[in-house]
Amino acid sequence: MKVFETELTVRYCETDQMGIVHHSRYYPWFEVGRTEFFTSGGLSYGEMEKQGLMLPLVETHCRYIIPAKYEDVVVIKTSIKELSPVKIRFSYDVVRKSDSALLAVGETLLAFTNTEFKPVNLKKYKPDIWEYVCNMK
Amino acid sequence: MKVFETELTVRYCETDQMGIVHHSRYYPWFEVGRTEFFTSGGLSYGEMEKQGLMLPLVETHCRYIIPAKYEDVVVIKTSIKELSPVKIRFSYDVVRKSDSALLAVGETLLAFTNTEFKPVNLKKYKPDIWEYVCNMK
Amino acid sequence: MKVFETELTVRYCETDQMGIVHHSRYYPWFEVGRTEFFTSGGLSYGEMEKQGLMLPLVETHCRYIIPAKYEDVVVIKTSIKELSPVKIRFSYDVVRKSDSALLAVGETLLAFTNTEFKPVNLKKYKPDIWEYVCNMK
Amino acid sequence: MKVFETELTVRYCETDQMGIVHHSRYYPWFEVGRTEFFTSGGLSYGEMEKQGLMLPLVETHCRYIIPAKYEDVVVIKTSIKELSPVKIRFSYDVVRKSDSALLAVGETLLAFTNTEFKPVNLKKYKPDIWEYVCNMK
Repeated sequence: MKVFETELTVRYCETDQMGIVHHSRYYPWFEVGRTEFFTSGGLSYGEMEKQGLMLPLVETHCRYIIPAKYEDVVVIKTSIKELSPVKIRFSYDVVRKSDSALLAVGETLLAFTNTEFKPVNLKKYKPDIWEYVCNMK
Repeated sequence: MKVFETELTVRYCETDQMGIVHHSRYYPWFEVGRTEFFTSGGLSYGEMEKQGLMLPLVETHCRYIIPAKYEDVVVIKTSIKELSPVKIRFSYDVVRKSDSALLAVGETLLAFTNTEFKPVNLKKYKPDIWEYVCNMK
Repeated sequence: MKVFETELTVRYCETDQMGIVHHSRYYPWFEVGRTEFFTSGGLSYGEMEKQGLMLPLVETHCRYIIPAKYEDVVVIKTSIKELSPVKIRFSYDVVRKSDSALLAVGETLLAFTNTEFKPVNLKKYKPDIWEYVCNMK
Repeated sequence: MKVFETELTVRYCETDQMGIVHHSRYYPWFEVGRTEFFTSGGLSYGEMEKQGLMLPLVETHCRYIIPAKYEDVVVIKTSIKELSPVKIRFSYDVVRKSDSALLAVGETLLAFTNTEFKPVNLKKYKPDIWEYVCNMK
């Protein structure tokens, strides 16, 4: 199983008045992780959309262990947990770079759909992309 | 079990280039739902924070059924699924007002902590707030 | 000159670690103000987009006077400051409802364009919408 | 005049249903630009806050020239346009890396305040930070 690493620095606007990163802000980090993972093999996420493949979210989950704070450098470790011709499940570890502490773990399930959000069998709909995604695993 | 309803209109900035509401944007809606629920009994969420009680998120989950779109009016139906002196679990139904379609269901688990994010037993730490929260159920 | 009023309650996720509303968050409020203003006459902003009219932002400006805080109820007072067949300038007052204090004033300039973001003369491109917008003033 | 450069890749969540980056999202980029600029000399923005110096926004302005799109790599070029013991004005150029096209230009005015948001004369309030900031110019 491949693990793809993305490094981010917490932005000021991602904090809330508790002085920590707002819980909803981890999901855009996961998104950065998986889209850079997609793109890393040579076919960008944006290009997939242009070819008519959408990946709407079906399910998102996050467990928060230690609050991330402003200016923390975090590493998003993304991997594919489950893959079928109709869906793909990613899992994420959010690790603080300075001490390798695990801050949060997450999962997202995405469907393969056409531009009208109708589910598709990726193997049949876009065999090239299917093969590409299989090689990511 | 009480169900608290909050009505929202989808904002333009909540959409993404798929033309639907970005998945991370449902969590601030849940937040509006539960904080208004808290506040509805007379003690505001902000007042609880001023009294030294924080409610950081421990876990968030959402399942997306039908995409919410710009200008949709949605109703967030919030209820307390689980309550103990150390944590509180809310569940949410997101319903499209025009046709009562269920767009998404979610859950969030929050811990009761002091301002240093140390877990507290709410029953002992702030008996008045504990009683208040018990009455919300 | 018409002034259109929209009432909002500050959301928790709109605050940052300074304990006040993040400055970038006023712009989505302005957006709510002007889109509800557009929609108030019977033709929704979303419908305009479906008819092929885009209104990308050309310029945004905000001056912050008193910080908005979590749970504040604010009123966005929106008016059209300038209108021509190629652009429209809105101005906004953000007023705290409890004491009518002026929290911020803003302006946004929007261009009328087609779906490829090419500037259009609205009077010629969509005469019906042009007339509709003129009546908003 | 120093120009500090920060490189960012447009995130999916920063787009809206027009298929371009939402106008409000440029302001967090400016924030990344100026806080990294602050931090680049050895004293982090977060550390300044811990020492009791707040820099709330007094004014923000942005002019949008070419829409930024998903996956664009953009360079934020930040410089100090004006500095006095009570305020600091930054200006920003947002440049698309692939072809050096100028996408947007912005400005933000920040006040020096204490933690109660009372304006301070930085030269007297925190002479060390004042000297540090003067050296940034």
